[in-house]
Amino acid sequence: MTAGTKLWGGRFATAPDSRMRVLNDSFPYDRRLAFVDVRGSIAYAGSLFDIGLLTSSEHAEIVAGLEKVAEEFASATFEPALEDEDIHTAVERRLTELIGAPAGKLHTGRSRNDQVATDLRLYVLEAIDALSDQLRGLQSAVVTKAEGHPNVVMPGYTHMQQAQPILFSHWLMSFFWKFERDHGRLQDARKRTAISPLGSGALSGTPFPIDREALAKALEFDDTSENSLDAVEDRDFVVEFLAAASLLQVHLSALAETLILWVSAAYSFVRLDEAHCTGSSLMPQKRNPDALELVRGKTGRVFGHLTGILTTLKGLPSGYNKDLQEDKEGLFDVVDTLSIELPIVADLVRKLKVNAANMAAARDSAMLATDLADYLVKKGIPFREAHRLVGSIIRAGETAGCPIDVLPIETYQRIHSAFDADVYSVFDSHQAVGRRATKGGTAPEAVDRQIRNAKSLLGSQASECCLQEDG
Amino acid sequence: MTAGTKLWGGRFATAPDSRMRVLNDSFPYDRRLAFVDVRGSIAYAGSLFDIGLLTSSEHAEIVAGLEKVAEEFASATFEPALEDEDIHTAVERRLTELIGAPAGKLHTGRSRNDQVATDLRLYVLEAIDALSDQLRGLQSAVVTKAEGHPNVVMPGYTHMQQAQPILFSHWLMSFFWKFERDHGRLQDARKRTAISPLGSGALSGTPFPIDREALAKALEFDDTSENSLDAVEDRDFVVEFLAAASLLQVHLSALAETLILWVSAAYSFVRLDEAHCTGSSLMPQKRNPDALELVRGKTGRVFGHLTGILTTLKGLPSGYNKDLQEDKEGLFDVVDTLSIELPIVADLVRKLKVNAANMAAARDSAMLATDLADYLVKKGIPFREAHRLVGSIIRAGETAGCPIDVLPIETYQRIHSAFDADVYSVFDSHQAVGRRATKGGTAPEAVDRQIRNAKSLLGSQASECCLQEDG
Amino acid sequence: MTAGTKLWGGRFATAPDSRMRVLNDSFPYDRRLAFVDVRGSIAYAGSLFDIGLLTSSEHAEIVAGLEKVAEEFASATFEPALEDEDIHTAVERRLTELIGAPAGKLHTGRSRNDQVATDLRLYVLEAIDALSDQLRGLQSAVVTKAEGHPNVVMPGYTHMQQAQPILFSHWLMSFFWKFERDHGRLQDARKRTAISPLGSGALSGTPFPIDREALAKALEFDDTSENSLDAVEDRDFVVEFLAAASLLQVHLSALAETLILWVSAAYSFVRLDEAHCTGSSLMPQKRNPDALELVRGKTGRVFGHLTGILTTLKGLPSGYNKDLQEDKEGLFDVVDTLSIELPIVADLVRKLKVNAANMAAARDSAMLATDLADYLVKKGIPFREAHRLVGSIIRAGETAGCPIDVLPIETYQRIHSAFDADVYSVFDSHQAVGRRATKGGTAPEAVDRQIRNAKSLLGSQASECCLQEDG
Amino acid sequence: MTAGTKLWGGRFATAPDSRMRVLNDSFPYDRRLAFVDVRGSIAYAGSLFDIGLLTSSEHAEIVAGLEKVAEEFASATFEPALEDEDIHTAVERRLTELIGAPAGKLHTGRSRNDQVATDLRLYVLEAIDALSDQLRGLQSAVVTKAEGHPNVVMPGYTHMQQAQPILFSHWLMSFFWKFERDHGRLQDARKRTAISPLGSGALSGTPFPIDREALAKALEFDDTSENSLDAVEDRDFVVEFLAAASLLQVHLSALAETLILWVSAAYSFVRLDEAHCTGSSLMPQKRNPDALELVRGKTGRVFGHLTGILTTLKGLPSGYNKDLQEDKEGLFDVVDTLSIELPIVADLVRKLKVNAANMAAARDSAMLATDLADYLVKKGIPFREAHRLVGSIIRAGETAGCPIDVLPIETYQRIHSAFDADVYSVFDSHQAVGRRATKGGTAPEAVDRQIRNAKSLLGSQASECCLQEDG
Repeated sequence: MTAGTKLWGGRFATAPDSRMRVLNDSFPYDRRLAFVDVRGSIAYAGSLFDIGLLTSSEHAEIVAGLEKVAEEFASATFEPALEDEDIHTAVERRLTELIGAPAGKLHTGRSRNDQVATDLRLYVLEAIDALSDQLRGLQSAVVTKAEGHPNVVMPGYTHMQQAQPILFSHWLMSFFWKFERDHGRLQDARKRTAISPLGSGALSGTPFPIDREALAKALEFDDTSENSLDAVEDRDFVVEFLAAASLLQVHLSALAETLILWVSAAYSFVRLDEAHCTGSSLMPQKRNPDALELVRGKTGRVFGHLTGILTTLKGLPSGYNKDLQEDKEGLFDVVDTLSIELPIVADLVRKLKVNAANMAAARDSAMLATDLADYLVKKGIPFREAHRLVGSIIRAGETAGCPIDVLPIETYQRIHSAFDADVYSVFDSHQAVGRRATKGGTAPEAVDRQIRNAKSLLGSQASECCLQEDG
Repeated sequence: MTAGTKLWGGRFATAPDSRMRVLNDSFPYDRRLAFVDVRGSIAYAGSLFDIGLLTSSEHAEIVAGLEKVAEEFASATFEPALEDEDIHTAVERRLTELIGAPAGKLHTGRSRNDQVATDLRLYVLEAIDALSDQLRGLQSAVVTKAEGHPNVVMPGYTHMQQAQPILFSHWLMSFFWKFERDHGRLQDARKRTAISPLGSGALSGTPFPIDREALAKALEFDDTSENSLDAVEDRDFVVEFLAAASLLQVHLSALAETLILWVSAAYSFVRLDEAHCTGSSLMPQKRNPDALELVRGKTGRVFGHLTGILTTLKGLPSGYNKDLQEDKEGLFDVVDTLSIELPIVADLVRKLKVNAANMAAARDSAMLATDLADYLVKKGIPFREAHRLVGSIIRAGETAGCPIDVLPIETYQRIHSAFDADVYSVFDSHQAVGRRATKGGTAPEAVDRQIRNAKSLLGSQASECCLQEDG
Repeated sequence: MTAGTKLWGGRFATAPDSRMRVLNDSFPYDRRLAFVDVRGSIAYAGSLFDIGLLTSSEHAEIVAGLEKVAEEFASATFEPALEDEDIHTAVERRLTELIGAPAGKLHTGRSRNDQVATDLRLYVLEAIDALSDQLRGLQSAVVTKAEGHPNVVMPGYTHMQQAQPILFSHWLMSFFWKFERDHGRLQDARKRTAISPLGSGALSGTPFPIDREALAKALEFDDTSENSLDAVEDRDFVVEFLAAASLLQVHLSALAETLILWVSAAYSFVRLDEAHCTGSSLMPQKRNPDALELVRGKTGRVFGHLTGILTTLKGLPSGYNKDLQEDKEGLFDVVDTLSIELPIVADLVRKLKVNAANMAAARDSAMLATDLADYLVKKGIPFREAHRLVGSIIRAGETAGCPIDVLPIETYQRIHSAFDADVYSVFDSHQAVGRRATKGGTAPEAVDRQIRNAKSLLGSQASECCLQEDG
Repeated sequence: MTAGTKLWGGRFATAPDSRMRVLNDSFPYDRRLAFVDVRGSIAYAGSLFDIGLLTSSEHAEIVAGLEKVAEEFASATFEPALEDEDIHTAVERRLTELIGAPAGKLHTGRSRNDQVATDLRLYVLEAIDALSDQLRGLQSAVVTKAEGHPNVVMPGYTHMQQAQPILFSHWLMSFFWKFERDHGRLQDARKRTAISPLGSGALSGTPFPIDREALAKALEFDDTSENSLDAVEDRDFVVEFLAAASLLQVHLSALAETLILWVSAAYSFVRLDEAHCTGSSLMPQKRNPDALELVRGKTGRVFGHLTGILTTLKGLPSGYNKDLQEDKEGLFDVVDTLSIELPIVADLVRKLKVNAANMAAARDSAMLATDLADYLVKKGIPFREAHRLVGSIIRAGETAGCPIDVLPIETYQRIHSAFDADVYSVFDSHQAVGRRATKGGTAPEAVDRQIRNAKSLLGSQASECCLQEDG
């Protein structure tokens, strides 16, 4: 008889078959919950002791035993038994081996239903905290890089077409704010994760006078759940984390796509450090931006795991259903994915070489067409009319086969008499950039303000990160 | 030449072809943004007036004209022109017809990029507010129903198997807390939606000294965006809303699935009002829970639209890309879906007939097995051992072909001598329910506490709703 | 009492409420099935006549009445009644108005369950046929374009980095084969769609001796379903169509992404016809590839609808469930989306201007690095060693700041003595292309073979399409 | 310098950093491709020998070396080196250790791009073949079970409400046909997978006169790819397999959901073998259908991986992109998932205990309402009118509080005079079932025909499976 069946098998005549074990057993992946499971059990043992269900010495034995189990996991000396169907079974089996009878009291009033919900929340809380720190590191890299390249004018794009000149630092800071929203979403998800389900039993609550609030505090939860049935079946926090991760991944994919474009020969706006490239087994010249391509590609797995958990949850009736065991692998994979991506992307941003000369050379004077229309607006022409007139100038340039900033003044004046000789001053990209000085604009002073705001959000974190990682 | 091409066509020699218009034009669906577009334009005209780009009379003409356009939409007398490629074009075209030249000044310093971002945020804010109210209505129906059925004991299920007895009101309240988290997520999404992008131009900010803060305040935004490039391409708020909607839909599908089970002949725990059923064109006896099935089925479209927008956003490079036009139809459909579902589900909950007798009759004494183990725990037997002993009793019952609460005391005592004649008192479901009295448990007093907390969250809203809708 | 309730309401005391109707009624979208519904009913009336359940005159009246209903839909004169809950109800209601009593016999032995399954299959069959034709049109445009630009050498890319020179026609033909697989998948889906469920009743078959085979033949199905329960609940054909559409959309998105890159100033390899571009309301110079961006963006809605239907189907128990009503809108939207995209993309390919000079100018000699290694292989050096040596040459070029084809022979020979003066002949891109002459390679003769194979697959279709659409 | 960088690092000055390796390296999961990689390389070595690029002894050494590498994988003695970035690198590194210089020639004219495409296709072909066999095993279990329970009448459901009586065997056979379509889809996917890309190089084909057809034949492919660029980037076959798997999973989830309902106390129609149940760690009485719940829940991961790969592919430009490395883990997980589910579900079906008595007891006479209407039709009343009349009878039964088959004849005749005393014969479920004798119907003879057709599709396979696995 296995440990699994030891736990639940009193009423069973036979053991599950081996294929069934492969389907059923979660230990191969939920062993990752070992430390939070032990933490939860130590806290729970404290509650049992408080209400007199454990003697002082039983309590001490259990705590010492659990600490020993955790050490075995930490030192990779834990030996799984064939019958460890999940991490809870494995820990209880090993505890029983270590301390004997008292281990059998630890499950009093507790079900694996509230136990696993507790473990998984503790895991997600740790993951959110670690990822939030890594995200702060990336934001810090963005700010530092932006600050280090204050006056580099480059083409701004819409529709992947040159649109208006902007500062490179403005472009880069656009990602700071995306990541700031991601940080906010992770923190909002954290609020709803930090609710302790422990003491909910299998579905209906515990008949023992457990102090759920004290238990929650011991485990650093913010609060306790309001309804035991909801507590054991709620996986909203997993979905919410994956949804926040999906948006973070959207932003990473946008950064990756843009940089993949810009490292290509056609742009050559930036150059990656070799550390973030790989070569080709066939083509000796290749220097591929693999890190960025993988970050872009991994968007698939993150969206996929979000779809996965939503699908699993769809249409489940009230009460814990075994389907919920499918809540873990996708979650773990997303945590691992972001944990490896975030520091690499931060490092990549830090080590990015910016080629200001190529950015300058790429600029087409037609990017100033809006400013040309604004020039007419200032002379009293309604914008819609000014827009139409500049359109004619663009066509004149195409017909003449030359950039619009070298069309003769006669061409301008033939299109509208409001054009004066001063029209050519419009084509100074730095001035055009400088004109966008309202909040959020691309003018140097407006970007400076962004950077100041960003640094104040990062607080002391930022400077530390920079000293440490960007030095 | 069309209005669309009037807006942007100065440089074009030819008009787009008719198939291209079907692909490109968004007016058939974004006309829903008419009122927020007009609101945005009225506010923007105020800003242009403040900085002297509109005279007082131009400003007045524009405002009056825009109000007229809104009235036409409100009264369904707006006549679309063939060339109205989107709502912005349509409004500007109509405004031009109504007031002539000044209409051409309204777009000064504004791009459709920041305009549509503003419109869509205003739309989502309105949607969140309306749906939050409807959600409060549903929560209120849940609380009122739970309160009205205080002591109905029913089987609680895990794995769709009878597990432990619970109160019907406890079951119902489990949904209150799910909906409360949904409400919280909508409000969190609201925070990040209520940020004004207006004044970001096409990507780089505005060269005119627009007071973006005043503009934001006029439109009841909470704040202004920090980076113009981010502001025009950010659709996080759409994704975040759809993710919150997806979880709400998970909860609705769980409620639907559970009730579909319980209205079936096999359970007959509850009965739906006829208003929420339909019949069969072939089978005259049918009384199908269509409302619930549709609610469950519509989970697909909500998840689908979330997948849709995430897919569209994946890998887009920096800057507005036309792909973003695909941000609307799925969003609108989800708003419509929830708007129709929420009041129907609230009504269905209100009108649900609870069949307490069938719930009582369905209860199997084996549901008290955990309490039987707890009985042994109180006699000093470790829980794990107690669990095993009760398993033997279950098997004894199956062997004898009778419920465990009628097994003779000898059978009990053969399995363990700790069983006394008082063992049969364990099988009182009401007492079992009453023992789960810690926070979140199913005991009447614990459920009362839930209901009190719930009502205080709903505040005065709840009582009003009830008076109005449940009377 | 409504038509819906007329159909099924005998046992109901009250009518559904108005909100419920919005949730429940499918007529607003399934009216698109009007013609297939009428076709199905005409065929079914024939069967009822054959087995004596309709007299000859009843049969004639029904057929004439149904044809009249179809005409009303065709001429947009069909007047929906408030109570038309779905297309079946609407047609039956109108038929009853037109011909009276005999209409009441048409539903004998038929359920809306088998009726709607029949209708939807007929609809999908028509959609597959129409889309397959449009796909053939796109393939034809690809072949014609490739054939018209036989010897244009351009950079081939991997990792969005220049890799090896290829022919433009080779690149373009790569899409032909993707579309060919899409065509094959649509045809495979067609096989499993062309199975008639008619005569399955609500779930258990029909008690009347309907000749199901004759009925299937009359409706141009290939075969009849094997199991009535499966027949009414099977929506595999919808999923399979959407999965095929999703892959087609992957291919369209890849074509769109590539062309969006290539029309940008950084590449300028191709130029779109104005018909497929739009401008900016703010920036007068813009010429945005909107058609391509929308095609790329619409990938989201197609994947989303696939996710949607899969989600809806997940976990439904046996038997028709009302959730299945959610099978239509996503399907219809995908049919509409592809129907508008395919001819536009075909037209866009036809009208694409290829800029061979820019393609030639963009080529970097490092793209011949593989050929340089092959040069060494031919001199007996193992490929892995040759690859390493050429890597050194690349680095030498970078150090010297010049392309590798102008490095002096001394540099080559310093790296390996096997390099002779003839090494520079390696850098002829046309020769490099010409060397890849095995099947599938980029050499002109190999591309010619592809084109011949492609034309033979298209058969007479191709030539007709070209005459008609590409002239 | 690592093996990875040995392969491609000639041009690189520094090695990738350790975090980058975690992001980049695929060996931890693509080592599963070891055997197909070796197969592919042995075949490729044959081609190099045929065209004189390998001597006879080099060829022999390479083949022997590769076989040794495969043996090491088979016996789990392969020792990975830190630098094995993927399976191709690992095999080549080990081969070099084993045989030295000749190993360096194996990559001549081959890129990892065509190599990995070849490997992955070989893997998918093997997976399809193995899963098809397992699916046949499940179909065989279904047929055998259906055949073994020929005349068990049970309630048929629509909307999870009793609808009409059907045979249990008819219900079970409904799944046979779903699985038959799944089998067809896998075979159709197989056709498009069995196309060899080998000889496509990195993107442009091979400059060496490799006999691609012979190579394809040696690897048991059906044909060779038509375009080298398409060949290296095509992952349609992965998507198509996952789409087919998703539908199979829909069907498994439907079977699981239905059986989960039927094993519950409310139905008790069937009983699972203990091997497919587990118990509860808290509730001693529980006997949970975990196998079925897990099968239902795993639908999430399968849909998720489909979404994942589609997302990854969306919007990738032409040419191999590193994002494609993300094509494997989801695929492998789906293969593993189905491989464990299919035999378990087959076994579960085989061992299912059918409780015909409970099925009989559950039947409500209202299920014969359609037959009652048909009774009137046979007396000349139009169906729609008959349907309405039977609705009145249902309501009469509800009013009287008794089943309709015990309503007095007076009640019937008050509703319509066509009702005669023979009306009660309608309520014989067996006769009702027997009336549905057209193809696909639930009558015993019609189900027999299904079973015969099914067995002929399974052919000799079926009988073998049964002898072997069902004995």
